[in-house]
Amino acid sequence: MSKRLTLVKVGGKVVEETASLQDFLARFSKLEGLKVLIHGGGRSATAMASRLGLEARMVDGRRITDQAMLEVVTMVYGGLVNKNIVAALQAMGINAIGLTGADLNYMQSVKRPVKEIDYGFVGDVTGVRTDEINLLIDQGVVPVLAPLTHDCKGQLLNTNADTIAAEAAIAFSRHYKTELVFCFEKPGVLRDADDDLSVIDTLNHKEFKQLQSAGSIHSGMIPKLDNSFDAIRRGVSQIRITNIEGLNSGGTTLLPD
Amino acid sequence: MSKRLTLVKVGGKVVEETASLQDFLARFSKLEGLKVLIHGGGRSATAMASRLGLEARMVDGRRITDQAMLEVVTMVYGGLVNKNIVAALQAMGINAIGLTGADLNYMQSVKRPVKEIDYGFVGDVTGVRTDEINLLIDQGVVPVLAPLTHDCKGQLLNTNADTIAAEAAIAFSRHYKTELVFCFEKPGVLRDADDDLSVIDTLNHKEFKQLQSAGSIHSGMIPKLDNSFDAIRRGVSQIRITNIEGLNSGGTTLLPD
Repeated sequence: MSKRLTLVKVGGKVVEETASLQDFLARFSKLEGLKVLIHGGGRSATAMASRLGLEARMVDGRRITDQAMLEVVTMVYGGLVNKNIVAALQAMGINAIGLTGADLNYMQSVKRPVKEIDYGFVGDVTGVRTDEINLLIDQGVVPVLAPLTHDCKGQLLNTNADTIAAEAAIAFSRHYKTELVFCFEKPGVLRDADDDLSVIDTLNHKEFKQLQSAGSIHSGMIPKLDNSFDAIRRGVSQIRITNIEGLNSGGTTLLPD
Repeated sequence: MSKRLTLVKVGGKVVEETASLQDFLARFSKLEGLKVLIHGGGRSATAMASRLGLEARMVDGRRITDQAMLEVVTMVYGGLVNKNIVAALQAMGINAIGLTGADLNYMQSVKRPVKEIDYGFVGDVTGVRTDEINLLIDQGVVPVLAPLTHDCKGQLLNTNADTIAAEAAIAFSRHYKTELVFCFEKPGVLRDADDDLSVIDTLNHKEFKQLQSAGSIHSGMIPKLDNSFDAIRRGVSQIRITNIEGLNSGGTTLLPD
């Protein structure tokens, strides 16, 4: 358990624009030690869906994934985004490998049960096994995880990249001392969402709930933080939320209670 | 070198239709011993290109791959076809992993030089390294290779699946006793292209050249056989050409001179 592993989840605009993605990958490639990258790609999927005459439908920021949209996200997340990141990292001297949850059967899920909303082919994670991935990591390989899982019955399922990152970090915590870094547009968790200078340096669960009650933290940040504190309770050593510039040590560090 | 490894390349209609692909994968999953799958997907790429308003342009059966078509083959080969095969194999109890040449930097290439024809983003293979893949294979993992390579400078390149199969088989021959099986629509190399019962059981290079001179073997079969005999000279123990039904032991066996 002495080995350290850094997982970086990159999403939002960072991953969708060539210049910011290259900037991010250059910084990521220089991070010392064993590491894993988790990426999103929602805007690219929406753009490709549009080119194919499909309309992206979202509920509370979650994509409704019918059969046609599942094809799009399989192509875009598993193929276009993932393989271009892998090729770019190889050019930077990083021995990357792109993986979905079906590859090496590393992340299993079930199709989300239909309640008020039918999300379609969306997977809720049920298990993670990293046996062969650990072997690769110990050879210096850097896994690049796409936001797709499978149900072990042949069905690929669309799965939120933040969730993939948290579940992977929890599973890797059985073998490594893990740090999970969420890298997105904002420099961290903000005391005032409109003021990028109001970054909160450290945050524990109690403080988060106080700020949530006070209305300082809201919308998309709430599930991200709920998931993160859950991951800390389940074994992840440290979680940071930051932007490209803060990749090494900046942003908001979440602390156990 | 006592370990045996079977590589199966599946292409043509077999891989493009759900029913025949499932039939093939069920048979492939039951093949004993260590194994690798290599797939094509040209018809799916052409169909997706058409949906995107792109026209597939072929010269002598080879795809002209401009930037827009490279995106399509990256999505379709690396994402849609590859990941669905991986998920289907996992459902059959096979611990598959999908790979392009960029993953683990396992197959390097250069963009084909422009002579009479500019093939665009097409890669000619320059090197294969299987270090980490061997580790995975020895863990019982089954690699599923998509017809994409990379130039080590960040560029993915479209590469013929028969070539990937032959180059991979040659490289694996340094570590395993390898058999390469080409699985397609026809039951083998035919003495009479119009008669599926005229399968030639065994063929050496000299006999191939005689049949080629006589006009019995022609068109697409010639490069496939030229590549195959080259692979035998470069260390592959056995090569067979067959259809789904002959996967285990049928078809035409190519012999060293």
